[in-house]
Amino acid sequence: MQQNLRIPGPTPIPPAVAEAMARPMINHRGPEFAAIIARVSEGLQHFFQTTQPVLGFPSSGSGAMEAAIVNSFSPGDEVLSVTCGAFGNRLAKIAETFGLKVTRHAVEWGHAADPEAVAQALAAIPNARGVLLTHNETSTGITNDIQALARVIRQRRPDALILVDVVSSLGCIDLRMDEWDLDVVFTGSQKGWMVPPGLAMIGVSQRAWAATERATLPRSYWDFRAARKSLEKGQTPYTPPVSIYFGLDVSLPMMRAEGRDAIFARHLAGGTLVRERARTMGLRLFADPAFASNTVTAIDVPEGVDGKALTKAMRENEGVVIAGGQEHLEGRIIRIGHLGYFSEADLTACMDALERQLTALGHRVPTGAAGA
Amino acid sequence: MQQNLRIPGPTPIPPAVAEAMARPMINHRGPEFAAIIARVSEGLQHFFQTTQPVLGFPSSGSGAMEAAIVNSFSPGDEVLSVTCGAFGNRLAKIAETFGLKVTRHAVEWGHAADPEAVAQALAAIPNARGVLLTHNETSTGITNDIQALARVIRQRRPDALILVDVVSSLGCIDLRMDEWDLDVVFTGSQKGWMVPPGLAMIGVSQRAWAATERATLPRSYWDFRAARKSLEKGQTPYTPPVSIYFGLDVSLPMMRAEGRDAIFARHLAGGTLVRERARTMGLRLFADPAFASNTVTAIDVPEGVDGKALTKAMRENEGVVIAGGQEHLEGRIIRIGHLGYFSEADLTACMDALERQLTALGHRVPTGAAGA
Repeated sequence: MQQNLRIPGPTPIPPAVAEAMARPMINHRGPEFAAIIARVSEGLQHFFQTTQPVLGFPSSGSGAMEAAIVNSFSPGDEVLSVTCGAFGNRLAKIAETFGLKVTRHAVEWGHAADPEAVAQALAAIPNARGVLLTHNETSTGITNDIQALARVIRQRRPDALILVDVVSSLGCIDLRMDEWDLDVVFTGSQKGWMVPPGLAMIGVSQRAWAATERATLPRSYWDFRAARKSLEKGQTPYTPPVSIYFGLDVSLPMMRAEGRDAIFARHLAGGTLVRERARTMGLRLFADPAFASNTVTAIDVPEGVDGKALTKAMRENEGVVIAGGQEHLEGRIIRIGHLGYFSEADLTACMDALERQLTALGHRVPTGAAGA
Repeated sequence: MQQNLRIPGPTPIPPAVAEAMARPMINHRGPEFAAIIARVSEGLQHFFQTTQPVLGFPSSGSGAMEAAIVNSFSPGDEVLSVTCGAFGNRLAKIAETFGLKVTRHAVEWGHAADPEAVAQALAAIPNARGVLLTHNETSTGITNDIQALARVIRQRRPDALILVDVVSSLGCIDLRMDEWDLDVVFTGSQKGWMVPPGLAMIGVSQRAWAATERATLPRSYWDFRAARKSLEKGQTPYTPPVSIYFGLDVSLPMMRAEGRDAIFARHLAGGTLVRERARTMGLRLFADPAFASNTVTAIDVPEGVDGKALTKAMRENEGVVIAGGQEHLEGRIIRIGHLGYFSEADLTACMDALERQLTALGHRVPTGAAGA
């Protein structure tokens, strides 16, 4: 059975990208790869909305988090970490692991960060060298208003570094690195980019470049300076994940052809479709509707239904793979991914399947819900 | 033109592996991936010749070097680094970057480490906590006798950790992690494994597991303990390079079918063929013949020939991609890879092309050399 993969990453791969993934290997120090990396970098800059070089690291998104921290700070540096869920917590924990003094501004799961509350939290840390933000919190399905958050942070701390996890949002939801004055912005290939996992991509502002020179945390693999120096020669400091670059060299032109605004509109429509169908089935959305994510929707498992049985039934009976909840939300929510390569039909098929399996597990769907 | 990729990695991919690379994405937290990672781990244990779990990290081989260091040691720990070329130097430099006190035992490039000399160097460091070794030095084309080196090290320092870079040797040249009592052994997917770059694979001895608990270097992405804990559940701590696992799930059974000893014999035959042909053409091998590598051969560029022009002519006129020298050997040597997926015909075609292009560039090949 061909699966309908509806988790928030890895995401489905278009046929042309799959074909590219199977291409014969080439020399990563030769002219062919140099041409690919030049095209890919230019495409990434378009979607990061930056004129800065975008660095690639063979890594998952969690590696990008570590890279952002060790290039930006020194042990003892104070940072404010705004956490809205599991991935915000992960970034804060990495900062603590590397000896930063982290003040957590913890937002209740399912909610977005309030700019004024963040401004107040920042006021209590006069020496804050940076603020750690999550654009789209994959564990809860909310999208923070990064533009508003960055504005209040920048007003109060002109020199602080603003690090933003955009792993599950970039290329799907509008984010303007340069215009919003963000400093380190990082994503992973398996999300909006329509290629398999294996490459982390990081945008670094001029302010952050200056910080990398001052930062004293030891770094080798993640060294931004080495990556930039190599990129200027059309290379990487060590062997890159060549197949992922082949994939991006196909997916980025597809994305350019669709158009940045059209992609954002498709994700808005996808998120809207899933949320509407969930409500019609009598389900409650986990996330604050005002900040509902257009790449992943978290839905409360209705009372009387076993959340793990539901994801299993979806997979085994319908061929639809959805995600469960993380940490304390395990078994309590389901999460449906709608990012990267998807069509309305994929989402409708997913929600139809959800309705059937919920009914089979005893949930009473309001009459006439399907397709309502 | 279909290239004959004869660099020491990335290496060519068999058609069945290429096909696997194009497979649709799956949930990395689901039962299908758990089954794959279980099969891949078992296959890796066979080739690492260990009963210990083999950990996978989305990374290049250089990342594996960093992982080995930060999991094994604490700042100020004294280690002996035996360097025979660029990759030995890289490992030593990473150890220094993370605050280890590194004593370098530098072997002249092109030569292998002498066990007695290493024993003497070790005698001068009574508190050595570890020794850093390279099995196959890709920059010079020598293979160290790790069995002999490990024996003299273990006799003198029963508790020292022996870290071995086996990036360009494992699965090609015999290396017995458990029998030779090695502690941290790491390789990369793009070498002998017949899959594209993107996954580092690391074997960890019981002695090294104990060391990871004592080591105080901060670590998050590279944390061996998190990787082992996830592996036991059929997962990884963060999103794995799923396509590479698909590839290994095909290439490892191919390697098992060929047989470990048959693979080693094929690499010996390949190395012998390339060395013989080079000698017949009147070329000088860069590496000490007693320790010549069976995965990569370094050949001096003959006097009067421009090394860069030679690699360019090979690529443009013959479709054969070979590597040049690194660091001070740039332009002075060429390197030919013969590891992973190759046949005798691939190597013969490469050497025929080399003879033609050397002749065209003015080198006088002894009469009747071709096919001699």
